[in-house]
Amino acid sequence: MKLTAKEQLDEILRGAAEVISEEDLLTKFERSEKTGKPLIIKLGLDPSAPDIHLGHTVVLQKMRQFQKMGHTVVIIIGDYTGMIGDPTGKSETRKQLTRDEVMANAKTYQEQIYKILDRDKTVIRFNSEWLAPMNFADVINLASKATVARMLERDDFEKRYKEGRSIGVHEFFYPLMQSFDSVALESDVELGGTDQKFNILMARNIQRDYGQEAQCCVLMPLLPGTDGVQKMSKSLGNYIGIDETPDDIYGKTMSVPDELILLYVNTVTTFDLKIKQEIEKGLKEGSLHPMKAKAMLAHQVVLQYHDKEAADAAQAEFDKVHRNRELPDQINELVIAATEAPEGSMSAAKLVVRSGLAATGGEARRLIEGGAVRYDGRKIEEPLEEIILKEGAILQVGKRKFLRIALGH
Amino acid sequence: MKLTAKEQLDEILRGAAEVISEEDLLTKFERSEKTGKPLIIKLGLDPSAPDIHLGHTVVLQKMRQFQKMGHTVVIIIGDYTGMIGDPTGKSETRKQLTRDEVMANAKTYQEQIYKILDRDKTVIRFNSEWLAPMNFADVINLASKATVARMLERDDFEKRYKEGRSIGVHEFFYPLMQSFDSVALESDVELGGTDQKFNILMARNIQRDYGQEAQCCVLMPLLPGTDGVQKMSKSLGNYIGIDETPDDIYGKTMSVPDELILLYVNTVTTFDLKIKQEIEKGLKEGSLHPMKAKAMLAHQVVLQYHDKEAADAAQAEFDKVHRNRELPDQINELVIAATEAPEGSMSAAKLVVRSGLAATGGEARRLIEGGAVRYDGRKIEEPLEEIILKEGAILQVGKRKFLRIALGH
Repeated sequence: MKLTAKEQLDEILRGAAEVISEEDLLTKFERSEKTGKPLIIKLGLDPSAPDIHLGHTVVLQKMRQFQKMGHTVVIIIGDYTGMIGDPTGKSETRKQLTRDEVMANAKTYQEQIYKILDRDKTVIRFNSEWLAPMNFADVINLASKATVARMLERDDFEKRYKEGRSIGVHEFFYPLMQSFDSVALESDVELGGTDQKFNILMARNIQRDYGQEAQCCVLMPLLPGTDGVQKMSKSLGNYIGIDETPDDIYGKTMSVPDELILLYVNTVTTFDLKIKQEIEKGLKEGSLHPMKAKAMLAHQVVLQYHDKEAADAAQAEFDKVHRNRELPDQINELVIAATEAPEGSMSAAKLVVRSGLAATGGEARRLIEGGAVRYDGRKIEEPLEEIILKEGAILQVGKRKFLRIALGH
Repeated sequence: MKLTAKEQLDEILRGAAEVISEEDLLTKFERSEKTGKPLIIKLGLDPSAPDIHLGHTVVLQKMRQFQKMGHTVVIIIGDYTGMIGDPTGKSETRKQLTRDEVMANAKTYQEQIYKILDRDKTVIRFNSEWLAPMNFADVINLASKATVARMLERDDFEKRYKEGRSIGVHEFFYPLMQSFDSVALESDVELGGTDQKFNILMARNIQRDYGQEAQCCVLMPLLPGTDGVQKMSKSLGNYIGIDETPDDIYGKTMSVPDELILLYVNTVTTFDLKIKQEIEKGLKEGSLHPMKAKAMLAHQVVLQYHDKEAADAAQAEFDKVHRNRELPDQINELVIAATEAPEGSMSAAKLVVRSGLAATGGEARRLIEGGAVRYDGRKIEEPLEEIILKEGAILQVGKRKFLRIALGH
């Protein structure tokens, strides 16, 4: 059943941090409804880090909604941008990539993307297609569409300029290239994280300068990881990978703090809008217990990346373990000073030794590899895993040894 | 006779506003002396305004000195820069030129340049040769050699940025293109007016970034025009064109204020260094009357752009007219208020009417066209010529009517 323009807008607004502007987006939906011409929905992907976790799926799920509505979703792989990189070599996040690296990353991306998007209806474009043929005059012409003052309004540029840290003139070109991607695509809507707001907004001006209607911007929140605090990221160890086992996805999702349930439901699940609305209502009114909502969420996430059977099994296993693993009434505290873990984390092996539940690093490793160590309800299997220290989290070694983490100052 | 490195340096320093650095330039001369390899001397010309006046010859005369020393002088015609222009159309001085316009202007330039430089030893290069083949990645690479903060140090950018006036991102590329010209040429020395200091200095850094030795900068003063105040410019009417008649060149040169004689001698004449030194000494010690020095200068300038015969004739004519035209002892003042001539000038016809020496504009025009009007020692032939009002200048109409200009406030 086809959604009306207003219904489409409601679905897109759900979970979005900001839409610029709602009125314009509604107008575009209405026009598309009238003409039958699908909108062009753009998402740019950086080809430098191809491993997708739940944090990355937030924008992809929003793309999926547009796709289900019948619009044309286009993934832009920034291959040309990636190959240019940062010629000064100063930027960690803009390492120059070879053509082979870009293509390998793009391939990995596509395999993962199609776990969310419909392969047959997804258009993949590489921005080298329109950027590589540009000559000096074309680049100057593009650069003339933006002013230095406007560029220096971007948060990171403004900060660096004020602090006297150097900004290479070439750095102004990443937002310009991204904007030109929108021109090449004649995109109606661009999706991105809230950290992309400046770049996505700039594309609106550049499109107008090239005689096009400005795209709408759908900005999605940056998903906090399982620690509930920092943005989900592989390097912080607070991520849920979409390639992980059903038990891991389920267990990690269950460890997400209650206050993030609704954000996760809204942004990473394919629940119908109606179910999302019901969960929100239930949580708000207290008729739905957070533990129950979280179980629905965890089940759904496993279902999305495996299947119903696997989701049922993961849920059953989790329940069994947790039912059987009632905590003793009295648990001693393990106080860890901030100076011991300045980053707020330490390796699993180190934590077990620190707790006194193992005498040496070797013993700790053997315990972990033998499956005897759990932290915050989750089995730890990798001695070098960075454990985020959380006030009140339970460290369990074997069947009967428990300690409750307390963070000292 | 070949000059030593030290003698070359002395000749180049004469008349230059600034050389960066003298030590480096001496080193380059010494190396060239030792290896027999000529230096590459670069001068960039903007192809938008092909009419050359004496102000333009200042850098060309310096080029000529390098050429006489046996170095390779290269004129860069910024054809690619000219064709790019300012795509926003905001800049008056950077109008986009067509290929035909650029080529026509370049041709006019060359004809005039060869009145100063040796045609057979002058290399002409067009910067489209190396700029046109650059792609987006090459441009980004070039841009990465400069920082935003450094760019904003340029006087005009700094002023505009502070005043909140917009600077297009593309404007950063003109200095970068000019710098890349130096890289393409592997230039040892670049010449330019003092207003080019920022751009010419930037090229030093860019050359180093591309693994080359930095060029030396020879900055020439901006020549004040016949009014002695403002930079010589066609639009201000204070210029001496190199294509003008011997009498005009001679007369206009004689109208230059005394305090500029030495600057003109040093920068626009081909006098030997020794003669320049003697004129300087004579003026300083009082053994050479300024009027005599100016006559030498005017004679020399006519000689350079016509020949000795023409110079002799122009001098004789000027002397005859001036000897016969002794001023009366008493001359009344013509007081002109600043509000009457906010720009400091008015048309010749208007001035004659204002003086009361003609009753109507028509009469003033006839007097001027009949050759009856002189101003500041020079015959005025064009009723619409903008006359720069100078305190003390004499306006003469007919044989006996004189008024002395006084500027009111």
